[in-house]
Amino acid sequence: MDLNKHIAATIITIGDELLIGQTIDTNSAWIASSLNKIGITIKRRVAVGDEWDAIWQSLEDEGKLAQIILITGGLGPTSDDITKSLLCKFFGGKLVTNQGALDNVVDIFTKKLKRPLLERNVKQAEVPDNCIIIQNKRGTAPGMWFEKNNVIYVSMPGVPHEMKGMMDDYVIPELIKKFNVHPVQHRTLLTAGIGESFLAEKLTDFEANLPANIKLAYLPNYGMVRLRLTDLQSASDLSRIDEYFQLLKLKVQDFMVIDDDVSMQEVIARKLLETGRSIAVAESCTGGHISQLFTQMAGSSQYFLGSVVSYSNEMKQDALKVPEQIIQEYGAVSSQTVEAMAEGVRKLSNADLGLATSGIMGPAGGTDAKPVGFVWVGFSSKEKTASTSFQFRFDRKRNIELTAISALDFLRKNMG
Amino acid sequence: MDLNKHIAATIITIGDELLIGQTIDTNSAWIASSLNKIGITIKRRVAVGDEWDAIWQSLEDEGKLAQIILITGGLGPTSDDITKSLLCKFFGGKLVTNQGALDNVVDIFTKKLKRPLLERNVKQAEVPDNCIIIQNKRGTAPGMWFEKNNVIYVSMPGVPHEMKGMMDDYVIPELIKKFNVHPVQHRTLLTAGIGESFLAEKLTDFEANLPANIKLAYLPNYGMVRLRLTDLQSASDLSRIDEYFQLLKLKVQDFMVIDDDVSMQEVIARKLLETGRSIAVAESCTGGHISQLFTQMAGSSQYFLGSVVSYSNEMKQDALKVPEQIIQEYGAVSSQTVEAMAEGVRKLSNADLGLATSGIMGPAGGTDAKPVGFVWVGFSSKEKTASTSFQFRFDRKRNIELTAISALDFLRKNMG
Repeated sequence: MDLNKHIAATIITIGDELLIGQTIDTNSAWIASSLNKIGITIKRRVAVGDEWDAIWQSLEDEGKLAQIILITGGLGPTSDDITKSLLCKFFGGKLVTNQGALDNVVDIFTKKLKRPLLERNVKQAEVPDNCIIIQNKRGTAPGMWFEKNNVIYVSMPGVPHEMKGMMDDYVIPELIKKFNVHPVQHRTLLTAGIGESFLAEKLTDFEANLPANIKLAYLPNYGMVRLRLTDLQSASDLSRIDEYFQLLKLKVQDFMVIDDDVSMQEVIARKLLETGRSIAVAESCTGGHISQLFTQMAGSSQYFLGSVVSYSNEMKQDALKVPEQIIQEYGAVSSQTVEAMAEGVRKLSNADLGLATSGIMGPAGGTDAKPVGFVWVGFSSKEKTASTSFQFRFDRKRNIELTAISALDFLRKNMG
Repeated sequence: MDLNKHIAATIITIGDELLIGQTIDTNSAWIASSLNKIGITIKRRVAVGDEWDAIWQSLEDEGKLAQIILITGGLGPTSDDITKSLLCKFFGGKLVTNQGALDNVVDIFTKKLKRPLLERNVKQAEVPDNCIIIQNKRGTAPGMWFEKNNVIYVSMPGVPHEMKGMMDDYVIPELIKKFNVHPVQHRTLLTAGIGESFLAEKLTDFEANLPANIKLAYLPNYGMVRLRLTDLQSASDLSRIDEYFQLLKLKVQDFMVIDDDVSMQEVIARKLLETGRSIAVAESCTGGHISQLFTQMAGSSQYFLGSVVSYSNEMKQDALKVPEQIIQEYGAVSSQTVEAMAEGVRKLSNADLGLATSGIMGPAGGTDAKPVGFVWVGFSSKEKTASTSFQFRFDRKRNIELTAISALDFLRKNMG
């Protein structure tokens, strides 16, 4: 069974910034995930610069490979943005001012930005006369929907929230209508504390016995591995995907965090909300990363009371009330210190649970006894205090991310 | 002048996870940036799944477009990783065990991971007999360097720090030798507080008068716009790039943060280090994001003392000593509260400077007087207290990011 027997799409992203390494392309992953959910598979993705021949060639090439071509970028108001005039020529139309798009541009400049409207912004309201225009509720550049030789080409701005708005409001609903698609069925579970190789070893027989239409994917990320079963036939009632998912859960039960496609912080947020408890965090080496994982979630103020990022020892002592003698006797990176930090932040914030981190993230600061990547994680509740240590061996950024996830997993295991 | 007259490379990234939206491809941007610095331009980037025909086709296609093909991913130990056997066949070799790679795998499992060595891990030490092996100092899968019809193909693991290690240690130095390349010359400056359209308007004449070999790029990101001049001829001494860069700086002087390719937080870190001052942050709505921007930088403990993420009013009162009556009279999102927060965290941590944020990030919590996206930012030093407000109009994640950058810019302007 081959993914490509389904309705296939490709993504073209346009912009020099993608080829000089200035911008990380987050749009493609979001688009892929959205299309996947409605049963459309992405065959490949191509990124090209703001260059006439390269864009033209990619439109021709991808048009041979897929029924849907989603294009982002190159629609800005500056002179390096050539995508719109190229599309106009490619599909043999001519540029005309669209009243709805013009009203939108005028509205944004006069009411929201309160800035004078420039000629180059007015030009953003021009669209080829042979496309369906997709109005942009979040910015000035409209989207465009073309059809040629039974292939659909949709051009959208590269600004992520503008593109996402157009996809959700217009493109996805239109594609569902047009292709009468059924969502592909996925079942996902999250594991922690076991590597990809060892999971694969445990699952050799399971994988070998899967029917041809059900596929298992290993999706490792920050010390966790997500396992995803996909039924490529999308056959609804007749699918045996749930049966295999039950089997999979049994096989990995010792390492399973949750049988759902959610993040570690969402697992914890759910548990906190269900039990009406609150949390506060004392972060030394993670420097605010754990707080950010919580506060990025809408509604986190219901259970997340706050944190102290105690980079200096004074902050540990003054804000968290860690006794000076503990730091002097055992050091800032120690079981005793993280336990005192977790307790300190819990009491300071009047939270039910406290979590703390302290370690050496690198590149400097390591010693023989406590090398770079060595961390302590502490937990505190009214009933219980606990701590554990980890040794990571990566660069600063990755050590911080792994510490944060490992701390959250330690919290999950201890919070009951 | 066309970028493609230079030595051209393309990037192929392999993995189903890239096509189902599970993984955001950060490798490509890093590779592009690294090659750009040594004067090799990326012509395009392609992402394909773990699928034989699609990978094969991409090797053939890209080989016609460029002299260098950099490939990442698909080298893991699980059964969906088919890249190595495909490359072996594509280049007509056979797999043989490489002793260096085997020693490395054994070393990692027995000494570092302290786990049993599995047959599938031993297989990772097999490489085609017609490639140059690139040993992996950071993981188990070796890299491979092939040459065919004067095109170089380099296959590397998809794990970012493993790929980066191979690039820095081997691939980049070899490419410099092989092609005798000169770095392309770039001059970059950072602006804040002005949109892309308005910058473009100011720079219309400047752009029109640039010589053919010098190109100006607008690189907007989080409310800032980076301007980059590139001399495509890399002609060293004869380049007029500095002359044009001086002119560019004059044109945008009112909005320029720094005439260098660094982030806002690096600009502030430099100023703090130069003047021997320290900072602490009180974050309400940014929830740890500003702290993380500081602490991601190695050596930040020299000037960053810590922060209080005061999500609850109790944290504002108990940890930051914001008087209860201020919060009651003016609200948590007010000039008075952020100024008290900035002062409170400065005194708590004994820092020279304090910075604070409080606002409504959405999606819920907005009112008519204080809608979603409305924020106050406060600054405190021994000599001065100041605050300002912003109104953003995006989603939660982007509102947080924009608030953080705007707060840092407010700090930069007030710190002297």
